[in-house]
Amino acid sequence: MSKNHTLYQHGTLALLVPGLLDGTITMKELLEHGDTGIGTGEGLDGELIILDGVPYQVDSDGKVNVVSDDFTLPFANSHFAEYRNLTDVTELSQKELDDKILGMTSANTFFSIRMHGTFTNIKTRAVKKSHKPYATLGKTAENQSIFLKESVEGTLLSYYSPAIFDGAAVGGFHHHFMSDAHDFGGHVLGFGGATGKIELQQFDTLEQHLPVYNKDYMNYDFSDWDILSEIHDAEN
Amino acid sequence: MSKNHTLYQHGTLALLVPGLLDGTITMKELLEHGDTGIGTGEGLDGELIILDGVPYQVDSDGKVNVVSDDFTLPFANSHFAEYRNLTDVTELSQKELDDKILGMTSANTFFSIRMHGTFTNIKTRAVKKSHKPYATLGKTAENQSIFLKESVEGTLLSYYSPAIFDGAAVGGFHHHFMSDAHDFGGHVLGFGGATGKIELQQFDTLEQHLPVYNKDYMNYDFSDWDILSEIHDAEN
Repeated sequence: MSKNHTLYQHGTLALLVPGLLDGTITMKELLEHGDTGIGTGEGLDGELIILDGVPYQVDSDGKVNVVSDDFTLPFANSHFAEYRNLTDVTELSQKELDDKILGMTSANTFFSIRMHGTFTNIKTRAVKKSHKPYATLGKTAENQSIFLKESVEGTLLSYYSPAIFDGAAVGGFHHHFMSDAHDFGGHVLGFGGATGKIELQQFDTLEQHLPVYNKDYMNYDFSDWDILSEIHDAEN
Repeated sequence: MSKNHTLYQHGTLALLVPGLLDGTITMKELLEHGDTGIGTGEGLDGELIILDGVPYQVDSDGKVNVVSDDFTLPFANSHFAEYRNLTDVTELSQKELDDKILGMTSANTFFSIRMHGTFTNIKTRAVKKSHKPYATLGKTAENQSIFLKESVEGTLLSYYSPAIFDGAAVGGFHHHFMSDAHDFGGHVLGFGGATGKIELQQFDTLEQHLPVYNKDYMNYDFSDWDILSEIHDAEN
């Protein structure tokens, strides 16, 4: 297993659904599996993006913080960046960008997209940290802030997961954003126009790590949940 | 990642559904990820079970063959055995055994079961190898032999995958069997009574490897298939 062909994932999207929001991996551990990544903090504490080994958090006030090694996360991805240039694009909407990328690569394996450029009418969100006892993902995510920018320079960092992994991962694209000025970012809800250079890194391996030392997770009975439809409600 | 806490999987159950049955990993490569495992050969060429580093194939004639390093597989699991004793059981049906095990461990992570003992009224199957152009999983699996034994000593080797990974893996239990005399085995369809010692090995990591060098796989459009219902028809 080449480490540059491996996407690391801690936790699953599914475990967030009933509100298993304990932080079960530290940022230090996550960074051992990559210098690039995304995630959310314990209790859905903001939106994380790791660029060049630096873990930024966009909190629900819209503030950008560099988090410490002992910051914990219930769900996260990381990998070691080794992108190749894919193409340059001008003024593509999020849907156009997703379609363009899928037209140039396979939808049947995991990959990451990194795009530096100018983004117009970009909308992001960050959830407000909640505390134990946690509510469900749907309830917790109601407490979110939405941020808008007419035009901003920055980096879009995205992971794509094949449809069959939906629920374990986020099936399809999962986009996070950080501005060059480190004053705007979060989980991307949409954008009007993206102009810049798209880079692609394809993986052949998903290293799926589960929080087996967390009793709440291990003892939870997921069978009462329609996990996939809950996820699709909360992530869009 | 401790290698004893990792379950390696090559390919997905989903890719078998439309008939992407090329062998995309060699037995030599699979054995680098474990001394214990299960799988099927190219074109659904029988049922494989790896015990103590020896890869046995039950073919559709019911013959047991030790396969060579260059034998290839479209879908397989392996791991390095480090089981602990779980419990002893007497005369449990397959359903009773599955329920007993799930009552003693978590359903939310991957694990393997190895059970040596006596099995009564055990029914197994092995599919006959097909050749390119491959038919679908459903069509190909129609060409299977079913084997029955009133009583046999042997080893049940099973993997359990959490429900959210159904489709990528076999959600729930996936049992293969090999007799001590190496004259009976295959994919287990059921048994009347199992008596013996159950061993458990729990994993914290799934290392999911995909056949990214196989063009048929990478170019395939899965979106027309209801993958999960096709799988449940074929695996039961």
